[in-house]
Amino acid sequence: MIILGPNRYGKAETRVVRVTRHGDAHSIKDLNVSTALSGDMSAVHLSGDNSAVLTTDAQKNTVYAFAGKHGIGAIEDFALLLARHFVDSQPTIHHARVAVEEYAWERNAASGHSFVRSGRETRTCVAHYDGSRAWVVSGLADLVLLNTTNSEFWGYIKDEYTTLPETRDRILATAVNASWRHAEPDERDWDKSYDRARQAMLAAFADTYSLSLQQTLYAMGARVLAGCPEICEARLSLPNRHHLLVDLSPFGLGNENEVFFAADRPYGLIEGAVLRDDAPAAGPAWE
Amino acid sequence: MIILGPNRYGKAETRVVRVTRHGDAHSIKDLNVSTALSGDMSAVHLSGDNSAVLTTDAQKNTVYAFAGKHGIGAIEDFALLLARHFVDSQPTIHHARVAVEEYAWERNAASGHSFVRSGRETRTCVAHYDGSRAWVVSGLADLVLLNTTNSEFWGYIKDEYTTLPETRDRILATAVNASWRHAEPDERDWDKSYDRARQAMLAAFADTYSLSLQQTLYAMGARVLAGCPEICEARLSLPNRHHLLVDLSPFGLGNENEVFFAADRPYGLIEGAVLRDDAPAAGPAWE
Amino acid sequence: MIILGPNRYGKAETRVVRVTRHGDAHSIKDLNVSTALSGDMSAVHLSGDNSAVLTTDAQKNTVYAFAGKHGIGAIEDFALLLARHFVDSQPTIHHARVAVEEYAWERNAASGHSFVRSGRETRTCVAHYDGSRAWVVSGLADLVLLNTTNSEFWGYIKDEYTTLPETRDRILATAVNASWRHAEPDERDWDKSYDRARQAMLAAFADTYSLSLQQTLYAMGARVLAGCPEICEARLSLPNRHHLLVDLSPFGLGNENEVFFAADRPYGLIEGAVLRDDAPAAGPAWE
Amino acid sequence: MIILGPNRYGKAETRVVRVTRHGDAHSIKDLNVSTALSGDMSAVHLSGDNSAVLTTDAQKNTVYAFAGKHGIGAIEDFALLLARHFVDSQPTIHHARVAVEEYAWERNAASGHSFVRSGRETRTCVAHYDGSRAWVVSGLADLVLLNTTNSEFWGYIKDEYTTLPETRDRILATAVNASWRHAEPDERDWDKSYDRARQAMLAAFADTYSLSLQQTLYAMGARVLAGCPEICEARLSLPNRHHLLVDLSPFGLGNENEVFFAADRPYGLIEGAVLRDDAPAAGPAWE
Repeated sequence: MIILGPNRYGKAETRVVRVTRHGDAHSIKDLNVSTALSGDMSAVHLSGDNSAVLTTDAQKNTVYAFAGKHGIGAIEDFALLLARHFVDSQPTIHHARVAVEEYAWERNAASGHSFVRSGRETRTCVAHYDGSRAWVVSGLADLVLLNTTNSEFWGYIKDEYTTLPETRDRILATAVNASWRHAEPDERDWDKSYDRARQAMLAAFADTYSLSLQQTLYAMGARVLAGCPEICEARLSLPNRHHLLVDLSPFGLGNENEVFFAADRPYGLIEGAVLRDDAPAAGPAWE
Repeated sequence: MIILGPNRYGKAETRVVRVTRHGDAHSIKDLNVSTALSGDMSAVHLSGDNSAVLTTDAQKNTVYAFAGKHGIGAIEDFALLLARHFVDSQPTIHHARVAVEEYAWERNAASGHSFVRSGRETRTCVAHYDGSRAWVVSGLADLVLLNTTNSEFWGYIKDEYTTLPETRDRILATAVNASWRHAEPDERDWDKSYDRARQAMLAAFADTYSLSLQQTLYAMGARVLAGCPEICEARLSLPNRHHLLVDLSPFGLGNENEVFFAADRPYGLIEGAVLRDDAPAAGPAWE
Repeated sequence: MIILGPNRYGKAETRVVRVTRHGDAHSIKDLNVSTALSGDMSAVHLSGDNSAVLTTDAQKNTVYAFAGKHGIGAIEDFALLLARHFVDSQPTIHHARVAVEEYAWERNAASGHSFVRSGRETRTCVAHYDGSRAWVVSGLADLVLLNTTNSEFWGYIKDEYTTLPETRDRILATAVNASWRHAEPDERDWDKSYDRARQAMLAAFADTYSLSLQQTLYAMGARVLAGCPEICEARLSLPNRHHLLVDLSPFGLGNENEVFFAADRPYGLIEGAVLRDDAPAAGPAWE
Repeated sequence: MIILGPNRYGKAETRVVRVTRHGDAHSIKDLNVSTALSGDMSAVHLSGDNSAVLTTDAQKNTVYAFAGKHGIGAIEDFALLLARHFVDSQPTIHHARVAVEEYAWERNAASGHSFVRSGRETRTCVAHYDGSRAWVVSGLADLVLLNTTNSEFWGYIKDEYTTLPETRDRILATAVNASWRHAEPDERDWDKSYDRARQAMLAAFADTYSLSLQQTLYAMGARVLAGCPEICEARLSLPNRHHLLVDLSPFGLGNENEVFFAADRPYGLIEGAVLRDDAPAAGPAWE
């Protein structure tokens, strides 16, 4: 017999910009919000009966209405507020997942109302709520880092397809995509927590003498946990952005780790989790 | 205590084009291959000891060498071949995941050696192998479909944030991203299986009178299972590419479902699984 | 003294989908329209006086209203209709440029109302109108072509930075971006003209034995002009999508032009115009 | 008769990263270089005779060799060095165009060798050289700016397709793409010139009370010229990134310019040049 399995639906990528005015000093929050709901959804799949469906259009409207009514503080708070609303207000909705991306802006010069978008990383979060419990994962995407030295790579398996020469000095570059799970999603200063986690990763990347990108990944994850007692698990996905030493010898030139080709594809991809041995069960946090 | 959790590493997006020559009639396979390995990786994470690491560079070389030595038939066979090789040849590698994307090309005119890339969907697969068992998921990405009629949407919840008017006739458009799990990854004609699954989805999209995109999703998944006994589960992710009816009344014009604004963001996103009630456990198939 | 130079403004990327219903057999046109206007625009630049400005919002509305009122046939006709309207209806607007991209759809199976987006090339046009004259350029973008043989490359300059080995057999691949100028923008069957030009390029790419991509570019342009008397100039931009032969000798394997790495960057880029010696002056056609 | 028109060829998007080591303090330059050459190219187009062709592969090699031999200072100097080399060293090459994009990096913490990519704008330049004269255009791309107030839009034409309500207070946002032409491409501190031009645009965007984006564009261009005597012309392309006020009244909420939908498409596009009345002829500078 054919049956319906896990499912969810929602409105993806609702772009909301919220301005707050304190006299002449304005501030802005620039978000991309994706909501996804689950619940009594057999009928809509099997027969098109929409009576249990809160439309994705209403989900979008709720994002805008809540941005107006409640303002937007930390994205984790905004995500939790939305997730709780959907589940608590609709009997047919049993689970909500709200994912938020935040784009950072900086003030432009001395102006109180002019801003420059900071293109560095995107801050992210995903909140889940099932009517009784909540889960929060915070993170960042596309934080591009590079070390010009203190990276080696040698001592690996040499099978019949291995041609890579060992190196005692290479460029190490990556675009960090990282998420970290909060042990308890209770009230906190999410912004401070984010800054601590971000700084921990930056510091670990800079001061780890690296023998492999895996080692650096673990060091970054462990540093987040060491510096942030509220976080119980970190997951990192680190593309190895290969910087290939260019052979300049045909032109009578040496190349003492000075000239590199920044390759696009293929790229190494290192993925891993670092967690406390007593971390609570993750539940749906990573879904 | 801080510990290492699940991890994998590999070479992502190795682009390989394989030409086969049968006299003047050539054929090509154009793939994007991503490999990911897991195993005895504590040492490399904790201390940078690479002795258990088969380099991602060697993984890439293997893709090219196997393309030369074995040729490339169905992508599922190629993915399984690679996955088995990595695990069976390296004691420290206990699990391999190989994902392949295939870009289709058509012959250009009467020529035996000239091709035009078909931009329609990308064919995909993911194979897992753990030394004793294998899992195969096939799929496609970005198959863009649109119905100009036979789609309604009404009867949904009206909460305080619902403003969407009900409609008895709308455009339904989506970009199908679908994957389907094979009950047994044994020898088969993967190309025929792919064609059957693809045709089932196209047909179900076209002939389902739709009361919601969820209903269409389920119909597509169920049609795949009905037509393909070898498949035990299908998962679909269907963005609702909203085509908004433009209000032309300010210009003294009606709009009988003729003129639409094709919106980018936000978009609905409907995700769901359809499976047999006796489907074997999925294991790592979807990871 | 600081002065205002050439300028234009408009609404870019208005996405319009137009459905036409002939009983059960529907047809669709899926366009991306960009309008740009010029004229008496000193005041708006120098002082913000908008009295000569037809808003970009009104330009967008016009696109939708005209799609409803006039329908959409060939994109060249639709572009000319819009361009003439803006200039002829507004005394302050002296020049209009309308660019259109068209995305092709094919029927899905036997259905009269279900469509599959054909991902191959995008059809394009740019029309200009200045109140008395019109100019039309038609074209296409991202038609990806590949020959598995009949391409050589040798006999080039060998300077001190040349290391490329000569080859008597290589893959030749490109993504054609081409535009062609019509000598007179009068009434015609634009669709037939497009098909002729497209087929001429496909045929020339397939049957030209190529000693360089420049030679192929010229052959494609010349074939368009030879087959289309209404066209006086063709401009092509051909990225050389390098397919690099992989050295499999470290693995004890030969590689008789069978296994290639499809590189992303850098890529060659060959750009050129082919025209009739008596082509009329281009005026603003290419701007 | 069919003839060859203007043409050029080269290697696009050569990605080069140059590291310089001053003891423990390293610095990096991260560039994307595109070269394009013209000259005696009839034979290669008409018959495939490559004897006048300096390969695009050699052009790429030259980029890497020069990065090694000469280092990389200001991108304008590097572009001129390359352009002069190609024309001066090859009798068949009469004109070179070199375009460079530079991605900025900042130091990571106290480390001398760890860097974070600054995602803000990309710095650009295009240099031309024809054997006797040179032309240099500098610029930037994707500098995203937003004012939360001090922007009005009213007083425009009201034609039959105008429905846009006038506003006395709106968000003004854009992604600046700007280029500016140097009157003389002689030796100078290109970095200081860049900083001055960039700061001029930022300041003009922030302190111009805007009645239209055209007015802001002109103010930005004029400010660049006023502050940089070495620059004779600025060209700006400013997409109007519409931030649409969300109607919250259905939810019993006001919206005093606080909640906005950041739209993707369509978008306004304002393009214009600002120049000195005695600016020298541009020649090929903008091509």
